[in-house]
Amino acid sequence: MTDPVTDRSELAGLRVDGDRLLRRLDELATIGPIDGGGSCRLALTDEDRDGRDLVVAWMHDLGLDVTVDAIGNVVGVRPGRTDGSPTMTGSHIDTVATGGRYDGNLGVLAGLEVIETLEAHGIETEHPVAVAFFTDEEGARFPPDMLGSLVYVGGLALEEALDVVGIDGAVVGDELDRIGYRGTSPCPGPAPRAFVELHVEQGPVLEAEGTTVGAVTGVQGISWTELSITGQSNHAGTTPMELRHDAGHVAAAVAVHARGIAARLNERAVADGSPDRQVATVGRLDLHPDLVNVVAGSATLTVDLRNTDEDLLREAEADLAAFVATIAAEEGVEVAERTLARFEPVAFDDRVVDVVADVATRLGHTVRRMPSGAGHDAQMLARVCPTGMVFVPSRDGISHNPAEHTDPDDLVAGADVLLQAILTLDGLTLDRTDPNP
Amino acid sequence: MTDPVTDRSELAGLRVDGDRLLRRLDELATIGPIDGGGSCRLALTDEDRDGRDLVVAWMHDLGLDVTVDAIGNVVGVRPGRTDGSPTMTGSHIDTVATGGRYDGNLGVLAGLEVIETLEAHGIETEHPVAVAFFTDEEGARFPPDMLGSLVYVGGLALEEALDVVGIDGAVVGDELDRIGYRGTSPCPGPAPRAFVELHVEQGPVLEAEGTTVGAVTGVQGISWTELSITGQSNHAGTTPMELRHDAGHVAAAVAVHARGIAARLNERAVADGSPDRQVATVGRLDLHPDLVNVVAGSATLTVDLRNTDEDLLREAEADLAAFVATIAAEEGVEVAERTLARFEPVAFDDRVVDVVADVATRLGHTVRRMPSGAGHDAQMLARVCPTGMVFVPSRDGISHNPAEHTDPDDLVAGADVLLQAILTLDGLTLDRTDPNP
Repeated sequence: MTDPVTDRSELAGLRVDGDRLLRRLDELATIGPIDGGGSCRLALTDEDRDGRDLVVAWMHDLGLDVTVDAIGNVVGVRPGRTDGSPTMTGSHIDTVATGGRYDGNLGVLAGLEVIETLEAHGIETEHPVAVAFFTDEEGARFPPDMLGSLVYVGGLALEEALDVVGIDGAVVGDELDRIGYRGTSPCPGPAPRAFVELHVEQGPVLEAEGTTVGAVTGVQGISWTELSITGQSNHAGTTPMELRHDAGHVAAAVAVHARGIAARLNERAVADGSPDRQVATVGRLDLHPDLVNVVAGSATLTVDLRNTDEDLLREAEADLAAFVATIAAEEGVEVAERTLARFEPVAFDDRVVDVVADVATRLGHTVRRMPSGAGHDAQMLARVCPTGMVFVPSRDGISHNPAEHTDPDDLVAGADVLLQAILTLDGLTLDRTDPNP
Repeated sequence: MTDPVTDRSELAGLRVDGDRLLRRLDELATIGPIDGGGSCRLALTDEDRDGRDLVVAWMHDLGLDVTVDAIGNVVGVRPGRTDGSPTMTGSHIDTVATGGRYDGNLGVLAGLEVIETLEAHGIETEHPVAVAFFTDEEGARFPPDMLGSLVYVGGLALEEALDVVGIDGAVVGDELDRIGYRGTSPCPGPAPRAFVELHVEQGPVLEAEGTTVGAVTGVQGISWTELSITGQSNHAGTTPMELRHDAGHVAAAVAVHARGIAARLNERAVADGSPDRQVATVGRLDLHPDLVNVVAGSATLTVDLRNTDEDLLREAEADLAAFVATIAAEEGVEVAERTLARFEPVAFDDRVVDVVADVATRLGHTVRRMPSGAGHDAQMLARVCPTGMVFVPSRDGISHNPAEHTDPDDLVAGADVLLQAILTLDGLTLDRTDPNP
């Protein structure tokens, strides 16, 4: 152990032990291994339990005060000079079935690394520092995603969450009991004084720009609509075009129109100098009977619309709905709409975003302020405390895939930014209200 | 038995026994029955054998000279006053897995009914009259469709056809042996002096117009293309529109463009007063991984283009290929094209088409000259003799479905037209060359 650092100005030179972080990431990835180097630790499975046990053991090694709440969220706290709410970091260690090594895990293990660095240098913070991992962030086994952090901030009643039935028929409460992670700390949990989460971008923007750090400004609003189209199945050779009720044509036309909505809104945003970008995706499109020579009698597709601006997202939704109504009438098909998900955009606290951006710049990294296109636990914590996130690049933007990759230098850079951001936040007076909304 | 009809003028009053025809259709439909009233008699299965045995027994009851050729086509011949090539009718009795009661069966059993009517009235024709059913018209078990008639006219070598492997791994030659229908008559078979086939329309045109009889002018040319698109799978939230290589978008855009090709060609045809209509269908479209929040990394779709005019069909193909190349380059995806089927349009013999139209008009039916949008054995016979077809309406255009339906009056009307067409053709001198090409 090196000498305790007592002068706050010396803290600016503090750095994490990158090798130790990478070793921990490698070790956690060996639990639930899958071909290609990724992991499968679906929430509340045996593999998730083994991952939890490992991280909890590391928390105990660091002398943290570890608590488990009633939905299985785990929080490890290192005391500060004063009592009170901790500065919190963390993320999740559950994965999708084809999970990568860094999604979630990086944020949790970098949090441990921050604390171990403080320990190694004998640094006492003003406020406690906490590292958390939240239950079922992926939602891959138990919908919705971000279940644990949602319950933590009081966005979903504990009883309701415990009754959630998974895709395999298992029930959250039963599985928490089975793996020994139904804890006794209450839900909702206590609000931290601030929350900052390190995560891989899961998108291509940082890599494409050659930028190392994303100072995340918020999370896009999400609108998922499933359209079930019922037309009439007909012979592709004998049915004249004007007598068709082609569900496949309507599905394809909606997909093309969705792309057009994004193009139109983004063209306007560029002209206006607005940072709000629309994305539109038809990722699922199924025809029935799906045969070369049969006009599709029915079709199902999903439309995923996201924007950082709620008004623009609503405009996109309205445009889509109007087009669907028009083309359904033209083609003589019925369309049933179902909302699969709808979240308003989340704006992070400018003070935390500024800290992340300033720290990253000070550490010599290129920085981009950017929204997150994916959901994260931080967006739930943003409901109860000043919150921000740090992104590091994802190779080819690939995630939820064993091929997910972030260069080791970038992983370590992210952890250093997290360390310095937590130290900076520790020195700030924060109330829950953002003075620069 | 009524008195023999010897005066040719009296023949014009001859009608089939409609009840007997309908009874035979009902009885054949009970072999391989499926829910909803249809039949499943995939080619060369036990059910197909049982259907064949029944029809052959009926042929023997009528005293026909029944032969089976090396690919399992069955021909029953009633002698005429003179030897030589017969006037032939017929169709097929194999079905798709979800077959209706009339597709194919009507043409074969109406042929039997024509012969039984001639027998019942003691009518001697100038030329022999033959009724045939051809092997594996549907191609549902053994591709390609119209296999038996294709071999009959010399369009495919017998040895090649016998080696065809079915979707269940069975081999045509083995299955012919197994069900006892590998006959000894040679392939290719002898050309009839003329061929006329009665079939349900399998399309909505006659019903929509309230017309009873279609005098079929030919068969549309068919172009089937499979496009396999390889883009890049990405997160739907984190990947900006301009960085996407969205295979699903390209697939949808191609589907919409294909519809546009048909609209453009048909608009021009209407303006020009041309009868040639383009149809374009994307019946199959599969995305991968097919998830709401993932940009599709790959997509497969099929484009079915048909036209009665070969030049127009080529124009449609060229338009499609140009669009695919353009959008693939724009989106940065790779597209592999594979031709699944390509047949030029078939024009039936004007003399036979005229006979069908004239006879139907004389019998008091409304008649429309029209192309066939589906493939039929007649298009193969057209390669070797003057050929035509009679269509009767299909309710809602539905076929290849247990709900396939034609009104009994229309079934009987079609058989009467077939009877009178055969009698008229019997009185004509026909050579193989159409004098009105």
